[in-house]
Amino acid sequence: MVKRYLTVTSLSDALSLLRTGFSCTPARELVPLIASVGRVTAEPIFARYSVPEVHLAAMDGIAVISRQTRGAGEQHPVMIKQAVRVNTGNVVPPEYDAVIMIEEVQIDHGEFIIRKAAPSWQHIRPAGEDIGESEMALPSGHRIRPHDTGALAAYGITEVPVLTVRIGLIPTGSELVSHGTRPAPGQVVESNTVMAEAMLVALGATCTRYPMVKDNPADIKKILEQAVRENDVVIISAGSSAGTKDFTADVIAELGEVLVHGIAIKPGKPAIIGRIDRKPVIGMPGYPLSALTVLRELVTPLVYAFGLPVSSFGTVDALLTVSVSKDIGSDEFVLCSLGQVGDRWVLTPLSRGAGVQMSAVRSNANLKIPAGVEGCEAGKIVPATLTVSRAEAEKALLITGSHDPLIDYLADLLQKKEIGLHSTHVGSMGGIFSLKKNECHAAPMHLLAENGDYNIPYLEKYIPGEDIILLCVAERQQGIVSRTGIGFDDLVRHSFINRQRGSGTRMLLDHELKIRGISHDALQGYEREVTTHLAVALAVKTGEVDAGMCVFSAAKALGLPFKTVATERYEIAIRREHLDDPRVAELCAAVTSPPFREIMDRLGGYDTRETGVRRVLP
Amino acid sequence: MVKRYLTVTSLSDALSLLRTGFSCTPARELVPLIASVGRVTAEPIFARYSVPEVHLAAMDGIAVISRQTRGAGEQHPVMIKQAVRVNTGNVVPPEYDAVIMIEEVQIDHGEFIIRKAAPSWQHIRPAGEDIGESEMALPSGHRIRPHDTGALAAYGITEVPVLTVRIGLIPTGSELVSHGTRPAPGQVVESNTVMAEAMLVALGATCTRYPMVKDNPADIKKILEQAVRENDVVIISAGSSAGTKDFTADVIAELGEVLVHGIAIKPGKPAIIGRIDRKPVIGMPGYPLSALTVLRELVTPLVYAFGLPVSSFGTVDALLTVSVSKDIGSDEFVLCSLGQVGDRWVLTPLSRGAGVQMSAVRSNANLKIPAGVEGCEAGKIVPATLTVSRAEAEKALLITGSHDPLIDYLADLLQKKEIGLHSTHVGSMGGIFSLKKNECHAAPMHLLAENGDYNIPYLEKYIPGEDIILLCVAERQQGIVSRTGIGFDDLVRHSFINRQRGSGTRMLLDHELKIRGISHDALQGYEREVTTHLAVALAVKTGEVDAGMCVFSAAKALGLPFKTVATERYEIAIRREHLDDPRVAELCAAVTSPPFREIMDRLGGYDTRETGVRRVLP
Repeated sequence: MVKRYLTVTSLSDALSLLRTGFSCTPARELVPLIASVGRVTAEPIFARYSVPEVHLAAMDGIAVISRQTRGAGEQHPVMIKQAVRVNTGNVVPPEYDAVIMIEEVQIDHGEFIIRKAAPSWQHIRPAGEDIGESEMALPSGHRIRPHDTGALAAYGITEVPVLTVRIGLIPTGSELVSHGTRPAPGQVVESNTVMAEAMLVALGATCTRYPMVKDNPADIKKILEQAVRENDVVIISAGSSAGTKDFTADVIAELGEVLVHGIAIKPGKPAIIGRIDRKPVIGMPGYPLSALTVLRELVTPLVYAFGLPVSSFGTVDALLTVSVSKDIGSDEFVLCSLGQVGDRWVLTPLSRGAGVQMSAVRSNANLKIPAGVEGCEAGKIVPATLTVSRAEAEKALLITGSHDPLIDYLADLLQKKEIGLHSTHVGSMGGIFSLKKNECHAAPMHLLAENGDYNIPYLEKYIPGEDIILLCVAERQQGIVSRTGIGFDDLVRHSFINRQRGSGTRMLLDHELKIRGISHDALQGYEREVTTHLAVALAVKTGEVDAGMCVFSAAKALGLPFKTVATERYEIAIRREHLDDPRVAELCAAVTSPPFREIMDRLGGYDTRETGVRRVLP
Repeated sequence: MVKRYLTVTSLSDALSLLRTGFSCTPARELVPLIASVGRVTAEPIFARYSVPEVHLAAMDGIAVISRQTRGAGEQHPVMIKQAVRVNTGNVVPPEYDAVIMIEEVQIDHGEFIIRKAAPSWQHIRPAGEDIGESEMALPSGHRIRPHDTGALAAYGITEVPVLTVRIGLIPTGSELVSHGTRPAPGQVVESNTVMAEAMLVALGATCTRYPMVKDNPADIKKILEQAVRENDVVIISAGSSAGTKDFTADVIAELGEVLVHGIAIKPGKPAIIGRIDRKPVIGMPGYPLSALTVLRELVTPLVYAFGLPVSSFGTVDALLTVSVSKDIGSDEFVLCSLGQVGDRWVLTPLSRGAGVQMSAVRSNANLKIPAGVEGCEAGKIVPATLTVSRAEAEKALLITGSHDPLIDYLADLLQKKEIGLHSTHVGSMGGIFSLKKNECHAAPMHLLAENGDYNIPYLEKYIPGEDIILLCVAERQQGIVSRTGIGFDDLVRHSFINRQRGSGTRMLLDHELKIRGISHDALQGYEREVTTHLAVALAVKTGEVDAGMCVFSAAKALGLPFKTVATERYEIAIRREHLDDPRVAELCAAVTSPPFREIMDRLGGYDTRETGVRRVLP
């Protein structure tokens, strides 16, 4: 019987079903030692023989019988009758029980004279010093690290028995094109099984990606039967919802049973757990972040139940910068940027659109908000789950404020210093408020004041009395982007796309409208907001609107005409207390570096004469 | 000119030479997306097109023109004239600017009736929502994570330009046999270039391992010339010291120059930095842990200078449990076991023998003791460098005390629970002192008291008044291992090998000798100490000694005769405060688990009737 969202199962119930409803017996395979790195031992690994197998000299010198050296001293040289010359690593013959370093031996007509007694076992590496024959070198369930291979090679291990879980991945959807093909409008690149394979292989699974199948129950059924035969687990990508073209649940029900359809997680609700021939069959939703969530929260624990360990980086308590609201009843997982500002961890949610893969790319942590609550308020301390090591998260540089393509290039330069620049685009005013609350390291801004100056009047007004430095990135051209080369005064006759409230670009627009006495209503599309310069240029390029306001580099990147409206000072505001922070120091160094200047020259529209100039609030 | 240890270079000077003395220009290669996981981007990766490229429906429903929905309400149904049916993911035609969910639409004779106005852009995924054409998806220098592949696939990236450093690895040494060959006495398995390849490939390098070369300058020279031609960096394994068969420095000097011979690090002092055709040539010492240290402290920073990021897990401040002494003048790196006992991090050095690879296998941290000091005292707080994630280190279970092969099997069982059991073999008395200082989670012991009882009298004497629980692992047979089947009373006529002071086995021996009125001197080899049961059995098996005392399972593992001397209670002492610690709880569960009982039955010599019995100190 197909269950169609009759009941949505909680995540914890779904997980316990996965653990208890299946035998979860992993497969075992032998892999060559050098290929075993990252794999998980299927059984304890024992040394085949002792290392070393016999006593070896640990120094260059002579092997002696220690009791024959007794009595030797500075004033009492002893001539050793029975000795043999050995180099480091040579076998010490059984009759000897000590080595004397060659520097301490006087050689006289082929006789060895010593002036110091040798305790027994001096400078000898005893047999089995490293490991004894039959001793356990590695336990089972151990993920083999690169340096383990040296030890295993030395212990006589050439092939390693490792665990695996064979997972079949079936991409479904008539709209799919394979990756490498440029999708036509309405087509989608099949990327979810690519991601799934990469994630699961990293855990130690063995994946088979089957050919893409159109939304046709007969075709899906045929390939699902094959995949169940050939694997321990099958994942069907997409078609798991309850729409007219969603056949995953029907097909699973035909071949076996649907145990769960709909799990109380967001993103990822349309997930399915089915069983065919006693094997788990997972229906994975098609939205990339839904798929990612199901892989991380459902499939990874399943693979763990098969014995493959999952590395976790733990959690840190962090201050949430933005309120997150949600519906009661589902565990929600929010991808976030996490960083340390001063001695506090600060957590900023990224876009929650289930299609926004860049949120996954940008995130270094996630926040689980439990089913029972309606959300989390800004300012609360919440447990952030790290998705990178804590040491890496400690290198995150948090930039909040106005967006400019240059910020991405600063990220590129800083990545080479192992600093991860996390940029949150909330506009110049948003940056000021973040800086005020000390929730970011730096706030880029370009706010034109009444007196013609940039930024300082706003900082004085909103963060009075604080010790803040402004570092000039560049003076940049803002203007009108269009397909036809129109200027500011033509805007009223064309459709327009705006930037979000609080962005400096919008404030510049309002300023220019006010000068000319044009009302907002006169601008068709004034209410349509996007958050980046590139998004403005893109809406123009696709023909959605005729014009918008953005920086020159965004227009140039898309090959669109641009008419300059103003040149504005784009500065980064930094609290003085953070200037010595190594991350902030590297940011400042990057801004004034020659490679960055070259980038600005190449992108165009940036006047770099003021680049690097620091201003201090009066 | 060859420099032969004339001066030893400090590590920091050697590192700055590597950074400044070479151009360190990485190679760049294109790899298919799925093979790019773990590799490092050579340049920023930009989206080839916007995702989505056009506006898409985010819900199943109808696409509408939002201004035609104005005025709709519960009491004011509006019939929509112009609308089109869309499913999630369908293209929203350009004339529409909102989607209304199908659940909110009443369909009446093919007409759509709504009762709620739709704001513009409702339920639409705008073009470029995920990423805009030409937007930067990843910076350069980014190590590609598994889930990044999904995004890159979706953004039209099929091949990824990644950095690499081509590294040639030349194993030298006449004593080498290739891995898979059982070494004859005095031969050594060539494992260092296996380890080097695994470590360097994990960083993103491309390695070529050249055939093994005997200690012959002409042969080494020939292969070195080839390796320099074919790579960016060459590493010559072994032969880097100043002995009579160490030719690495000579050969480098013939083809180029030796910049450094001898670096003030331990282990790893004989390292060489040379330059041939402007390329770095590293001489890596032959001892495995010397090689590991040079790879980690010298080669890894070199690879970093080529642009390959190195993940670090940071440091924690930890209490050092054992004093470490060293010579002034060298930075010494000590491999350690790190764990958290209560709220303290506790750090225990592992064997420092440069041939003891098991120290690397067992370690999860290391301690750098700077050149200027003579060592570190027990009880000091020192910075421990993590070599696993902090979250993994937090799962370390520290067991200190008497050794039994069963401890390795408990490690095997606990690894499946992702608990890393770190066992330090210091004998039963050593365990008591560790427990007294609260520097371990559990202390295995088997100490026979005058009154015939085990362990409790010792705990009462040395840790009076503490709340300690004893968990019985088993009653185990201790006895005499030999090649000829001799018993205790034959010991005086044979050579013997002892266990270390403070071990329960040695105390049992002393007890049995005392009963029989036999003096220590009567036992030939009483002073020769090893630290494990297996090491005793091994010394017997190799013919080094005739007999020793150990547990039955060690004799059985090596197929040696065994004569029982006593059955003793092997218990684990645990402070009550740690019983609720999840790691300790899992340890207790493992001891009483059926798989563990099966292991004891299989190994033999363990009476399990008392297994799991808890005793509390009176």
